Amino acid sequence: MDQEKHVNQSDDVHDIENEGLLDGKEIERCRSEVSEKNLSYTKPLLVKRTNTTSQIAIVGANICPIESLDYEIIENELFKQDWRSRKKIQIFQYVLLKWAFALLIGLGTGLVGFFNNIAVENIAGFKLLLTSNLMSEDKYFKAFAAYAGCNVGLAAAAAALCAFIAPAAAGSGIPEIFGSVLGVSAGFVVGKEGPMVHTGACIANLLGQGGSRKYHLTWKWLRYFKNDRDRRDMITCGAAAGVAAAFRAPVGGVLFVLEEAASWWRSALLWRTFFTTAVVAIVLRAFIQYCTTGKCGLFGEGGLIMYDVSSANATYSAPDILAVIFLGIIGGILGSMYNYFVDKVLRTYSIINERGAVLKILLVITISLLTSCCSFGLPWIAKCMPCPTELSVSCPTVGKSGNYKSFQCPSGYYNDLASLFLNTNDDAIRNLFSTSTLKEFHISSLFIFFGAVYCLGIITYGIAIPSGLFIPVILAGACYGRLVGRLFESISSLDAGLFALLGAASFLGGTMRMTVSLCIILLELTNDLLLLPLVMLVLLISKTVADNFNKGVYDQILKIKGLPYLEAHAEPYMRHLVARDVVSGPLVIFSGVEKVGNILHALRTTGHNGFPVIDEPPFSEAPELCGVVLRSHLLVLLKGKNFSMDRVVTGDDILQRFAAFDFAKAGSGKGIKLEDLDIKVEEMEMYIDLHPITNASPYTVVETMSLAKAAILFRQLGLRHMCVVPKSQGRPPIVGILTRHDFMPEHILGLYPHINPDK
Amino acid sequence: MDQEKHVNQSDDVHDIENEGLLDGKEIERCRSEVSEKNLSYTKPLLVKRTNTTSQIAIVGANICPIESLDYEIIENELFKQDWRSRKKIQIFQYVLLKWAFALLIGLGTGLVGFFNNIAVENIAGFKLLLTSNLMSEDKYFKAFAAYAGCNVGLAAAAAALCAFIAPAAAGSGIPEIFGSVLGVSAGFVVGKEGPMVHTGACIANLLGQGGSRKYHLTWKWLRYFKNDRDRRDMITCGAAAGVAAAFRAPVGGVLFVLEEAASWWRSALLWRTFFTTAVVAIVLRAFIQYCTTGKCGLFGEGGLIMYDVSSANATYSAPDILAVIFLGIIGGILGSMYNYFVDKVLRTYSIINERGAVLKILLVITISLLTSCCSFGLPWIAKCMPCPTELSVSCPTVGKSGNYKSFQCPSGYYNDLASLFLNTNDDAIRNLFSTSTLKEFHISSLFIFFGAVYCLGIITYGIAIPSGLFIPVILAGACYGRLVGRLFESISSLDAGLFALLGAASFLGGTMRMTVSLCIILLELTNDLLLLPLVMLVLLISKTVADNFNKGVYDQILKIKGLPYLEAHAEPYMRHLVARDVVSGPLVIFSGVEKVGNILHALRTTGHNGFPVIDEPPFSEAPELCGVVLRSHLLVLLKGKNFSMDRVVTGDDILQRFAAFDFAKAGSGKGIKLEDLDIKVEEMEMYIDLHPITNASPYTVVETMSLAKAAILFRQLGLRHMCVVPKSQGRPPIVGILTRHDFMPEHILGLYPHINPDK
Repeated sequence: MDQEKHVNQSDDVHDIENEGLLDGKEIERCRSEVSEKNLSYTKPLLVKRTNTTSQIAIVGANICPIESLDYEIIENELFKQDWRSRKKIQIFQYVLLKWAFALLIGLGTGLVGFFNNIAVENIAGFKLLLTSNLMSEDKYFKAFAAYAGCNVGLAAAAAALCAFIAPAAAGSGIPEIFGSVLGVSAGFVVGKEGPMVHTGACIANLLGQGGSRKYHLTWKWLRYFKNDRDRRDMITCGAAAGVAAAFRAPVGGVLFVLEEAASWWRSALLWRTFFTTAVVAIVLRAFIQYCTTGKCGLFGEGGLIMYDVSSANATYSAPDILAVIFLGIIGGILGSMYNYFVDKVLRTYSIINERGAVLKILLVITISLLTSCCSFGLPWIAKCMPCPTELSVSCPTVGKSGNYKSFQCPSGYYNDLASLFLNTNDDAIRNLFSTSTLKEFHISSLFIFFGAVYCLGIITYGIAIPSGLFIPVILAGACYGRLVGRLFESISSLDAGLFALLGAASFLGGTMRMTVSLCIILLELTNDLLLLPLVMLVLLISKTVADNFNKGVYDQILKIKGLPYLEAHAEPYMRHLVARDVVSGPLVIFSGVEKVGNILHALRTTGHNGFPVIDEPPFSEAPELCGVVLRSHLLVLLKGKNFSMDRVVTGDDILQRFAAFDFAKAGSGKGIKLEDLDIKVEEMEMYIDLHPITNASPYTVVETMSLAKAAILFRQLGLRHMCVVPKSQGRPPIVGILTRHDFMPEHILGLYPHINPDK
Repeated sequence: MDQEKHVNQSDDVHDIENEGLLDGKEIERCRSEVSEKNLSYTKPLLVKRTNTTSQIAIVGANICPIESLDYEIIENELFKQDWRSRKKIQIFQYVLLKWAFALLIGLGTGLVGFFNNIAVENIAGFKLLLTSNLMSEDKYFKAFAAYAGCNVGLAAAAAALCAFIAPAAAGSGIPEIFGSVLGVSAGFVVGKEGPMVHTGACIANLLGQGGSRKYHLTWKWLRYFKNDRDRRDMITCGAAAGVAAAFRAPVGGVLFVLEEAASWWRSALLWRTFFTTAVVAIVLRAFIQYCTTGKCGLFGEGGLIMYDVSSANATYSAPDILAVIFLGIIGGILGSMYNYFVDKVLRTYSIINERGAVLKILLVITISLLTSCCSFGLPWIAKCMPCPTELSVSCPTVGKSGNYKSFQCPSGYYNDLASLFLNTNDDAIRNLFSTSTLKEFHISSLFIFFGAVYCLGIITYGIAIPSGLFIPVILAGACYGRLVGRLFESISSLDAGLFALLGAASFLGGTMRMTVSLCIILLELTNDLLLLPLVMLVLLISKTVADNFNKGVYDQILKIKGLPYLEAHAEPYMRHLVARDVVSGPLVIFSGVEKVGNILHALRTTGHNGFPVIDEPPFSEAPELCGVVLRSHLLVLLKGKNFSMDRVVTGDDILQRFAAFDFAKAGSGKGIKLEDLDIKVEEMEMYIDLHPITNASPYTVVETMSLAKAAILFRQLGLRHMCVVPKSQGRPPIVGILTRHDFMPEHILGLYPHINPDK
């Protein structure tokens, strides 16, 4: 059996972890660009990429305090020693610092979110203003040249940032945020929320891994946070802050990380996440209030609520509900089709992107030109429509981005397609959501815009710019919803703006497949609680319909990336297998007191991160499982050179030579590497006592336990290693070690090809 | 050591489970009345009551699919056998039925919620109308007599229902709902949400335990749902539906059960819960829309949003935030004081209530009279205030419950205290939340009302009527908030209604200590998303402040009731102990093939629910742990009389004699009892093979595992039994079994009195 399969993390390849990672499953394209050179997208990448995966790449997918307890038993011990000698005030300091970090994450993410918004509004606003000025002078070709030129320039800058700078500046999140600003400004059908989430997580990770030596941001106190739990907690906070900043939806952010990112529920974390997103909301609000004084250039509409539809009357009756059910069903189908195409396009692009930076940038420019042609070309099809008479805004729009673009139309007329195409995505969504403007968009215009946005959204996700999926899906969904509203206007009395909202919900349900968090995000986005039952209904229907066709888009992306994501539930066929059945690879076992040469050899020849330690006579009466030792701890121990000539138990004394934080989790890629060790030939024959660094109570299951049960235990506790012990005595005390990879369907079905997973 | 401590559930005392249980931790007083004869409230009841506790009494506190897998391994097996012989359509039917049940729960709870509202509005409306008519005729004494008479009559009826009928009709939730209607109508400072949650859970439980033979509600298909997981899932749905119905807050209901009731996170359940609450919202909405036509008698204001403050302007600046912080701090202190007094009062009342039904009813009548005197007497203190001139409503109020009660005042004047006291709680809260009516209530009136409601709320919770805590806390908090708003009106520009909302949030945060779900419930209650950051801020501050003084009110009640609630986190002192240290009691072990007499003796003399089974020579080479067998399964097996004369392994053949559902979890109190067995003397010496019913892969930990780690494992997996196995070979293969009670601080600190838990 391929022993590579048994490896779940090696410490030499940390690129994903390094970049700051994870934003739930919202994995940005940009990041994938960085690491995809190693990837082949044509098949599940499990086998090929096992060494490069990192648990942290999925935010908190398997976070659990018990894992912390399990993995940091030594750190805990050391910490405690260090701790006891100090005063109680320090514990208070530690707790206070956690909250201070939450505050910092909130402030940082809020600032970045505001910067993002103001930059996009100004850059895109300038571009659109230039175009519309040229249009109003009837210089159509110049206008197109200016528009497309701006777009291509911005797109190329974003792509270059991603292709050249991002890998070098990995982990800071700064290239992502600039790339996102440029990408969104370039008129792509992409969202800013993915990069925002990523940036939030990066800010948190920077604190969590003990600052950054590169940027000279280190502080003695930060070492206390160099452990799995605190780090993951912070990253979860950061991801929530990102969602909160992207949608100005603080509660939605909390729920997003709980529903989509974290697989467990810890009251204290919930609490801190909530605080972080509240800070984000307050920061954003303060800045937006400041901007209402007109000091932010072209920064337009603000307010904590992005799309306020609450002015619409929200009474509904039976025919409305029928229309909504229809909307949900078709929305679910279209949403799952979206997923299908995104998957196909991602796999195609990956082949192109693998060929190097130049092709990457060319792809971006091609898509940018295509987008420009659509945005500028399609509005010509639309007829000029006369301005409505009773309007509070000017029509056609003068100045910056607005609701009624004149485009090529004479005075007093507007081009409804241009109002949608030649706007930022945010403004286009706001237009579509707008209530009491039933006739503003012609059915044919909506149809054209829907088709264009649906296709552009699919072909844009996957190019080398940092991009989010929410906004394209909301945009296409809102247009679809408004279209359905127009078609049903004879039988349904619901406002077209509300239909647009429900359409967006149906698309989100059909692609993302989240429910509660989507519902809350939509609520916070639109401020319409009275529509809640309808939104819930649509989400339920579209998710149910779409689930019949394929998986959610995040699950698909995780699969493409080959990340070993454990499903919360066990697959049915796992009930027919037992834990022993999937243990694979030759088991590398250490003795309680082991020869240095053997350890080095094992570290060199395997990629395992955990090794069982067994006590044998004369140290015990019969061979017994002493525990599990981690690769990183072994490296620290070997570096310390506490060797002895004889095979004797030296006990905890050898730990005295280490400082309290020597065993603490190092920042990504900063731990001791195998090459750092300088073991002499004569030392290879010496012995070292592994007991002090062995986790003496690893989680164990008997070999005959149902695999389904073992899988749920593994997932529920967020383990990395689980020991399988024999049922009967008198055999070697350990049968094998299970890691995340051993529970992957690909691995199991590879071992037992006759199993039909669908049965 | 007291072996009673080792018992965690016996199947002869199921009263709590029987009653339908649990509504999160929202445990109604009424229910406690039923079972409290066995209780002493003067000390933690752990030791005395261990036999009567049921895990289900805390909704989903430790639900987990793995436990299901663990506990229903036999049911699963049987089910599977039964299953395979059928067609795929049945699995579809099973899934469909689950959704149908969710629909039923939603419909049922929605109906009950609507009935509750309409009944309260009509009964209380009639009472208030009668009083105000008599008042307007200057017949003050007659008015008081009518008012107090109605109140006492309603209160006595509610108490009688609770004291006499509830125990007999336990489990249906019907007495609770009628009791609640009467209690709320009687003018008590109690809420309807506790009973609503309870009723929702009861409806769900009825379906979950396979219908009710008593009410002839059985159906063949229901047996498929006779298992822990489906039952608990349904109860969780029911509890969520209850919250949704009580507050008309569908998302709030989902979050309430997730935050307060369930300790784990399962996407499928979330999904179904969400559906249930959406159904509730739609049902309520439909009925309320129907009532707007005036066909519901005195049913007044409706709409999905109870207290709509969204018309108020929600801009705020630095001084406002300072005022809000002040509000939060004082609110937290007052909230924790509320908890403190509720705790004291509950313990006092329990002594009175123990003395029998008559004293119970007398206590209710006393409190009712006191409430009537306050409500009727205190408004005389208030000065008559002139009606505001620009009003859309009539002033003073004519007809049913309204905003400006005239009470003793002349025409054109109103009594602001009477507007608060002589109204239903809902209307009083609506009055307090009302915006743009800054001067409506005089500061002194607010002060008097606050004092009265704060005290009445404390002394009312605990009397023998079904009562909820939310409404009293919101009422007192809203009044407090409005008071603070009036005091700060010179420096803060926030509306008094918004201050009332924030005051309610601060009280809720100070007593309940939930955050996210409270936030959502308040949002859905008030429809004001723009206030979200302020609400979050207030909740955070008041919770933090209150946490310094005592625990949340639900935790206190759980403690008073002696329910073994496992905290999500391990206590610090648990790190210094290992699993072996807390194993207690003589361990009762069965052999793989055991003598019938031994089993019967063990079942009679212990209350244990799980027994380890050990294989010994000649069935194995060395003694080895075979697994754990459950009391309920043993009883079924013994009832089947599959005995053999010799000590031989009979294998799975003996299961052939049982039908697929014989081992399914029986409805509460409906399982086979020890007395039902009719074992003859000669059979006592015969043998029975326990292997077929043994769970062969129980969860095990080594004896040297840190207790903290074991506790988190236990809690995270939602176990009932955990085997402690020896570290070294050659000893008996099991050291002991840990149950929930072994992790209770009371038990551990009893064993190790020198441990200082606060260190």
